[in-house]
Amino acid sequence: MLVSALLTSLGINFGLCVLFFTLYSILRKQPFYYDVYVPRLLVEGTSKRRSRFNLERLIPSPGWVRKAWKLSEEELLSLSGLDAVVYMRIITFSLKVFLVAGIIGIFVILPVNCTGDQLEDIDFSDFSNNSLDVFTISNISSGSKRLWVHFSAVYVVTIFIWYLLYYEYKYISSKRIAYFYSSKPQPHQFTVVVRSIPVSVRSSISDSIETFFKEYHPSTYLSHTVVHRTNKLRGLIKLYKRIVRLQGNSTEHKYGRAGCFGLFGHKVDLVDHYEKKLENIEENVRLEQSELSLAGDEIPAAFVSFKTRYGAATAFHLQQSINPTHWVTEQAPEPHDVYWPFFTSTFFRRWISKLVVIVACILLTILFLLPVIFVQGLTNLSQLEVWLPFLESILTITFVSEVVTGYLPSLILQLFLKAVPPIMELLSSIQGYVSHSDIEKSACNKVLWFTIWNIFFATVFSGSVLYQLSLILDPKNIPARLAVAVPAQASFFIAYVVTSGWTSTSSELFRLIPLIGSLITKPCKSTDDELVVPTIPFHRDIPRLSFFGLLGITYFFLAPLILPFLLVYFCLAYIIYRNQFINVYEPKFETAGKFWPIVHNSMIFSLVLMHCIAVGIFTLKKVSLASTLIFPLPILTLLFNEYCRKRFRPIFIAYSAESLIKKDREDQNDATMDEFFHKLVTAYQDPALMPIQFSTNTDSLHSPLIYSDEV
Amino acid sequence: MLVSALLTSLGINFGLCVLFFTLYSILRKQPFYYDVYVPRLLVEGTSKRRSRFNLERLIPSPGWVRKAWKLSEEELLSLSGLDAVVYMRIITFSLKVFLVAGIIGIFVILPVNCTGDQLEDIDFSDFSNNSLDVFTISNISSGSKRLWVHFSAVYVVTIFIWYLLYYEYKYISSKRIAYFYSSKPQPHQFTVVVRSIPVSVRSSISDSIETFFKEYHPSTYLSHTVVHRTNKLRGLIKLYKRIVRLQGNSTEHKYGRAGCFGLFGHKVDLVDHYEKKLENIEENVRLEQSELSLAGDEIPAAFVSFKTRYGAATAFHLQQSINPTHWVTEQAPEPHDVYWPFFTSTFFRRWISKLVVIVACILLTILFLLPVIFVQGLTNLSQLEVWLPFLESILTITFVSEVVTGYLPSLILQLFLKAVPPIMELLSSIQGYVSHSDIEKSACNKVLWFTIWNIFFATVFSGSVLYQLSLILDPKNIPARLAVAVPAQASFFIAYVVTSGWTSTSSELFRLIPLIGSLITKPCKSTDDELVVPTIPFHRDIPRLSFFGLLGITYFFLAPLILPFLLVYFCLAYIIYRNQFINVYEPKFETAGKFWPIVHNSMIFSLVLMHCIAVGIFTLKKVSLASTLIFPLPILTLLFNEYCRKRFRPIFIAYSAESLIKKDREDQNDATMDEFFHKLVTAYQDPALMPIQFSTNTDSLHSPLIYSDEV
Repeated sequence: MLVSALLTSLGINFGLCVLFFTLYSILRKQPFYYDVYVPRLLVEGTSKRRSRFNLERLIPSPGWVRKAWKLSEEELLSLSGLDAVVYMRIITFSLKVFLVAGIIGIFVILPVNCTGDQLEDIDFSDFSNNSLDVFTISNISSGSKRLWVHFSAVYVVTIFIWYLLYYEYKYISSKRIAYFYSSKPQPHQFTVVVRSIPVSVRSSISDSIETFFKEYHPSTYLSHTVVHRTNKLRGLIKLYKRIVRLQGNSTEHKYGRAGCFGLFGHKVDLVDHYEKKLENIEENVRLEQSELSLAGDEIPAAFVSFKTRYGAATAFHLQQSINPTHWVTEQAPEPHDVYWPFFTSTFFRRWISKLVVIVACILLTILFLLPVIFVQGLTNLSQLEVWLPFLESILTITFVSEVVTGYLPSLILQLFLKAVPPIMELLSSIQGYVSHSDIEKSACNKVLWFTIWNIFFATVFSGSVLYQLSLILDPKNIPARLAVAVPAQASFFIAYVVTSGWTSTSSELFRLIPLIGSLITKPCKSTDDELVVPTIPFHRDIPRLSFFGLLGITYFFLAPLILPFLLVYFCLAYIIYRNQFINVYEPKFETAGKFWPIVHNSMIFSLVLMHCIAVGIFTLKKVSLASTLIFPLPILTLLFNEYCRKRFRPIFIAYSAESLIKKDREDQNDATMDEFFHKLVTAYQDPALMPIQFSTNTDSLHSPLIYSDEV
Repeated sequence: MLVSALLTSLGINFGLCVLFFTLYSILRKQPFYYDVYVPRLLVEGTSKRRSRFNLERLIPSPGWVRKAWKLSEEELLSLSGLDAVVYMRIITFSLKVFLVAGIIGIFVILPVNCTGDQLEDIDFSDFSNNSLDVFTISNISSGSKRLWVHFSAVYVVTIFIWYLLYYEYKYISSKRIAYFYSSKPQPHQFTVVVRSIPVSVRSSISDSIETFFKEYHPSTYLSHTVVHRTNKLRGLIKLYKRIVRLQGNSTEHKYGRAGCFGLFGHKVDLVDHYEKKLENIEENVRLEQSELSLAGDEIPAAFVSFKTRYGAATAFHLQQSINPTHWVTEQAPEPHDVYWPFFTSTFFRRWISKLVVIVACILLTILFLLPVIFVQGLTNLSQLEVWLPFLESILTITFVSEVVTGYLPSLILQLFLKAVPPIMELLSSIQGYVSHSDIEKSACNKVLWFTIWNIFFATVFSGSVLYQLSLILDPKNIPARLAVAVPAQASFFIAYVVTSGWTSTSSELFRLIPLIGSLITKPCKSTDDELVVPTIPFHRDIPRLSFFGLLGITYFFLAPLILPFLLVYFCLAYIIYRNQFINVYEPKFETAGKFWPIVHNSMIFSLVLMHCIAVGIFTLKKVSLASTLIFPLPILTLLFNEYCRKRFRPIFIAYSAESLIKKDREDQNDATMDEFFHKLVTAYQDPALMPIQFSTNTDSLHSPLIYSDEV
């Protein structure tokens, strides 16, 4: 790729970013778009839809940047919870890493690369016609003493990243413990999920649970809630709600404002029709609910609550039954975090579904290589001309060819990638996790490894599945092959950072897709419809940040030109995500930092990969002493990781006896605990079994709550 | 190798076995050898050294075989504990496997192999000159339909082994639980080992422990014993004991019978000399002990005892401190099972020593290849003649060449292998385990993998470290290379089974080395010396059994001729080890079956290895459909293993809450528990700190026990 192609790509994306920023600065002040740009504030009531018009609203203002910048970590913690803090710390961590790596890269390595004599000299008179390879390590001739500069840089940056990783793990651990200490009593702290409860003929599941826990945890057992199979009921309630909404709309049209299309007489019929249907469904729902409450479709799984956190932890940590596959306990999620639909129950079924999901992931990874191969074809113009000869005439136009090689490949890739996080989330959800947070964590991991495999390796090794497989089966050649292939793709990844990174963050700010969605659906929505505040899709964004981290770490000494672009990306992300946490996203659950270990692992992987490439490069460039001296680095990195795993990992799995008992003691003198325990008994009721407000209000003595979230 | 060479080896070993059996049958009846052949009965007092002579004593009688045969599992359990039962079940498990595999192998596969047409036909007139390869799969020509017989055999035997493995794991699990239910209260059930106790300047370690556990386990905490650094004291006590013994001998010589060498006057001086020295040491020991009791060299590690088993289990399962590397708990071993010398304490030091041991094991494995290469040279006579040309004349003698190729190689190998278990035990002991049983378990694993690697793979791939390494680094060619190399070594391994297997078991019966040792030391020993009953070295014998299992499973369809020899081996082992459990070995510790998972894993490995070889063989023989159809087998085997790991493995790690609480409840009504708790407080006292009986008995108010075992 030539400098000019990079500049074109840069120009397009810079333009897009400026456009998005400007539009955002204007649109966010328009009350019409409040539900897109400040839904959180709207729901919280801090922003009201002001309809008063003034000119200021049309002038883009950067006030939001200042506000986002000034947000302190404590404020962020109270606003969006520890997960948001951890998310922002991933960004600041990357900023720190790439600031140091950037200084070394730009001021030390880049000049060394440029003054190399392997390729042609830089043509300063026609700068944009230089190949980008001039700025990479490829420009250094074999056996050159200059390679020791790269060698030292690898050592310095590795040690710096170790230090930062350790510090960050420690910091987030302490935050996690502090968060626990400062938390109010919460249902999930006192509860465990029990699965694979052995079914006996003589007694119901509920009775078995009561007998078991009263027998073995007499002093701490409080209550339990058996899970019911509510798929059918959930379907009914969904239908019911849709009809209620339709009826509401129709009634509005009937008595209120005129229908927008004037089909008046027809509407009246519809209303009658709905009312009849509603009565039918209400009857069904009521029947079903009462049946279920009477121990109908019980699933051998339950939420068991205890009187102390320590009691719950004991039940979680110890194997309960003689048969380890019975009475399997795990930590309960927060009540609103429970994922009811796939509450798969038996030990064996969960195991099988896990295997199925693994196979599905592998298949997806293999199938996804097809678009990647196509994208690869684009960066190679001459090959494209062979494939599609009729394009030859167009491709000779400089601008077109620059767009095609510089911008189009990563755009197409990115569009395909958009589909991956939802698919992975779906796969994780059928894997048998009981909570949204677990599903998201698992999906996060899946997306991360998918990205690394399908973007990094598939791009580097130009596609072919068989070639990649042959690589796994021939591990001793990995460094050599990496050394040849990785530097060759430097320009592609620089372009990738600019297109995928820059554009994705600025479109995150502009909320392009929600905006379009809102513009389409708004005319048909009634104003009474509840506004749903979105949650940040960690499983989409954390893998992206980690992947850019991987790119930066692996390329910093090969093609330091990537670093300024990465720094810009992380700076943008820093401001934009802070702004989004203030205005847009609301936390749906709180894992208290459980996403950090995923990022830590990905950083360790990046480091080891970088060392592998370094070994290969130094061997290829015939500085065998350097390649030998790199060897201790991956080993030390893995040992460092092992140490961190022992020192910090347990903190992210469960709280220690020390902290649990301390918290329990604090509560002993708390007068509100009785009330809390009273609520705890019903905290894990399936929302589908909650009474809903029926249209005929005569016989409903139930609470009028509608849990719309889960049904 | 020719049939005649095998027959020679067979003849030698059969002769040895008969000799050992006959000698054993005579010698075991001689009172002079009671301490070698029935030490256990001697110590228990069931056998007395009868000095009355009768002729019957000189006639070999097979009475012991009947006695060993009749021993029931319950009797064995009460005699030698669950570990011995598990050990015998490993043998019966192998017997079952190879009985079925043997029937298939000898009656189905062997005829098919023999009637193959790849090699020369069997020459029945000069049977002993046939090559053994005629009986192996090498004799089947490529693409032959007969290979489907082998294919079916692989499937049948694999499924049979799955069934047996599952059944056995289940049976041993149930035995383990039953053993726990029927056990009396034992100190280790109520105790945990706490390590990495944070040292504070203000309070002693003992105080910190008391404060911590009284704070966080107030209802269940009973007492604790801090570990002291007693290396110096242990040395002193050892010296003291030696001198006491020498003094005893001298005194005996002085006042009792005459000295055997008549150096009378010199002895008297010696006695005086010893008495002075003794006083000195006594003073030192007393000083050291009182110093240590006063919180001198405390190690930040302790045994903490609880009032209930459940309390101890809770402390073991839950992370105690906020920092996961502090207050690290693990299950306590039985008091007499504690390994005091290497009570390494800090988290970091243990971690480092573990790494060092891993490196040492790798080095040992690599260095060990040297003798293996030499042995390999012996099976190849022509190469030996090139190396050592002066041997040429001797090697032309048929018998010598048969001994050299058939017998010598595995004998040399076996002698070298003798050194491995003690070395591995030493390595395990510096790895930081707190109990002999853990050390032995770890050593067992090390020896097993060492054997598989250094005997199986090194023999199969003829030595070269680099070649083996290249194999790991090129995994896709493993099946193909195995398929070529494994059948070629069939005759070596048949000879190995006969020499190493048969001879080792019969010399186990004859106790060759203890016999020689006893003959040498007896003249100088006084009769008062305590007779030490040996314990069975599981880390030597279990890997051996597992390795023969691996040989049988991998070779049963390649060279079924190995199976009858294996069956004879396991039959011998069955009778001999039962006899040894009755007469010789006494259990030193009780892991309650924790050795089984090691055997299970090795069986799973053998199966997968066998499938790999089968894939390679069928590809090599151009029956690609068969090699494809084998593929599901290793996958299903690994899934089966995964299932067993979930279903049974937790039972072998810790007992469930259910069983712990049941046992605790039983004890509540037991009147003897008070006494037990009283004893429990001092159960984990370091034996070096126990008062010893001093020669000057005036001021010793202490108990006169001498714990000779540990010091």
